[in-house]
Amino acid sequence: MSENKYTGLNCPIPITEYPRILLAHGGGGRLMHQLIDKIFATAFANPHLETAHDGAVFDTESKKTAFTTDSYVVDPLFFPGGDIGKLAVDGTVNDLAMCGARPLYLSAGFIIEEGFAMDDLWKIALSMRDAADEAEVSIVTGDTKVVDKGRGHGVFINTAGVGVINHDRNISPSSVQPGDIIIVNGDIGRHGMAIMAKRENLSFETTIESDCAPLAATVKNMLDANIEIHCLRDLTRGGLAASLVEIASTSGFKIEIEEKNIPACDEVRGACEILGFDPIYVANEGRMVIFVPEKEADRTMSILRESSSWPDATVIGRVIDNRTGIVTMKSLIGAERIIDMLSGEQLPRIC
Amino acid sequence: MSENKYTGLNCPIPITEYPRILLAHGGGGRLMHQLIDKIFATAFANPHLETAHDGAVFDTESKKTAFTTDSYVVDPLFFPGGDIGKLAVDGTVNDLAMCGARPLYLSAGFIIEEGFAMDDLWKIALSMRDAADEAEVSIVTGDTKVVDKGRGHGVFINTAGVGVINHDRNISPSSVQPGDIIIVNGDIGRHGMAIMAKRENLSFETTIESDCAPLAATVKNMLDANIEIHCLRDLTRGGLAASLVEIASTSGFKIEIEEKNIPACDEVRGACEILGFDPIYVANEGRMVIFVPEKEADRTMSILRESSSWPDATVIGRVIDNRTGIVTMKSLIGAERIIDMLSGEQLPRIC
Repeated sequence: MSENKYTGLNCPIPITEYPRILLAHGGGGRLMHQLIDKIFATAFANPHLETAHDGAVFDTESKKTAFTTDSYVVDPLFFPGGDIGKLAVDGTVNDLAMCGARPLYLSAGFIIEEGFAMDDLWKIALSMRDAADEAEVSIVTGDTKVVDKGRGHGVFINTAGVGVINHDRNISPSSVQPGDIIIVNGDIGRHGMAIMAKRENLSFETTIESDCAPLAATVKNMLDANIEIHCLRDLTRGGLAASLVEIASTSGFKIEIEEKNIPACDEVRGACEILGFDPIYVANEGRMVIFVPEKEADRTMSILRESSSWPDATVIGRVIDNRTGIVTMKSLIGAERIIDMLSGEQLPRIC
Repeated sequence: MSENKYTGLNCPIPITEYPRILLAHGGGGRLMHQLIDKIFATAFANPHLETAHDGAVFDTESKKTAFTTDSYVVDPLFFPGGDIGKLAVDGTVNDLAMCGARPLYLSAGFIIEEGFAMDDLWKIALSMRDAADEAEVSIVTGDTKVVDKGRGHGVFINTAGVGVINHDRNISPSSVQPGDIIIVNGDIGRHGMAIMAKRENLSFETTIESDCAPLAATVKNMLDANIEIHCLRDLTRGGLAASLVEIASTSGFKIEIEEKNIPACDEVRGACEILGFDPIYVANEGRMVIFVPEKEADRTMSILRESSSWPDATVIGRVIDNRTGIVTMKSLIGAERIIDMLSGEQLPRIC
């Protein structure tokens, strides 16, 4: 369990001297330079990281580039299975992977509330370093701002990512075709319920851990095997339901899924039942749907289950030759209902 | 004066229906999609903007890529001469330009406080559009988060930028050489004092307007004329002083400037005197220092003053063959003093 993994590690800025972030740490003067050098440059050290200049410069081997961004405002900052730092790296890595890109470089922008504990910032920086190492990306440029106490909330992190696309597939909702099958790489609902349980101090028999994980290696395995991927989408805010509704609406085709095939662990199902949530709307941070032609189903499943360590990967539905652009789900008792997006979300600030 | 330029323009989301941002506008459901479509996609419309996918994909014509990020937390959001939207575009465009890159694509991540006025968000989006048009960049990907009331402050914006480098110059502090002259492109201190005056409700005879401006076209003019640029640096947080101290320290050479040559308008000098600030530490958002060999001085000055509309461009100092890595300033009465960074900054949240 990675929660509080780094408690006790020595913070490079002595917390006896600066136990908490001051407004001056964002002011462009000596304290800000010390913060960047000791915390961020120490944790993220890599050949492209340029802390004394305005940006990073690198060579790209490919003409086709993918570019994405996400801000992370999750509350609480540390939760079972991860923390805001791991989330900020994995989330942006996954957005690049969903474009079929190989993630290479990340930026990191921190908006820190005055008074934030220095050693928590260090823990988050170390967690980002580990996540970047695992996903084989480098954090190459960054920015630090400090806002007055009560005008932020702990720390918000923005990461933007640059990746390269070394193939000619157009992986996007517009490539979805009737007959495509839809695979999910693992059980759903863990991240949202882990946040909820931690936030509300709920305890279940087993702690629900976030599924927060990088997906780029799995996508690479599929591309290397020349799988004809039509579309990929990670299941973050709005969960499985919102992702499928977006894809159905953009592609124009109907999507049918079967409730009995949707994997979710007992703890998540139990917590959802108690709290009145539906797992298909709950956020995930290491789960995606994969759209491939039926003929690729077996090969894709074997890559997911064997070489990519997703033993719970499951076919959950298919794309129908029907231009309604809606999503329907066949329930356990056989009834079919239309799945729509929620107006808002069941839980705010889950990512 | 661009303050409140857009007051009265019709917001695409009827403010009778949604006068303010709700938590649900960040929840991944229907309201978030409406917000993104009606506000951001409408304002930023361009061929690369992909709101229904996880990232933008584009071809780059060059192998060498520059990548940078900045978060903007300025308070107040609207000020004489600009607003947070213009700042968020110009600031990141300028960071790319300082690497010698041609800025091409920006991302935009919004962290909005629950209750923020919908039409202020629209004004900011329009301002970003205008700034992007002026700087000839496209906003191609984005993200929207909403945080609870009292846990943010209006809106924070992160922009990351990607640019291409089509030349072989290494424009960075490590290229600085003894004998280089140092040019500033205009009068200093406007941005910080404009923010201060607005925040503290100070009025002077003339309103001080921020100098917020894109610098990429000016850098392009110098590169096109094949000026041997050694280093560029925009004078944001920490002002002229912090930029020069960083460059001197990284290059290892001493920098000497002359107080009498530093351009600042009477209003800025007056405001600084009243408030006890030194203009060389005050933030700017459209000013840079340019390091070139002395033989390039005349050509550089003529490009700045004539083709790039910087009539107040001035030579303010030079790099000395002395490996102390310090900055000194000769005062109006001829005394020489060492310039150091401040510990924090005179003003927080100026960018």
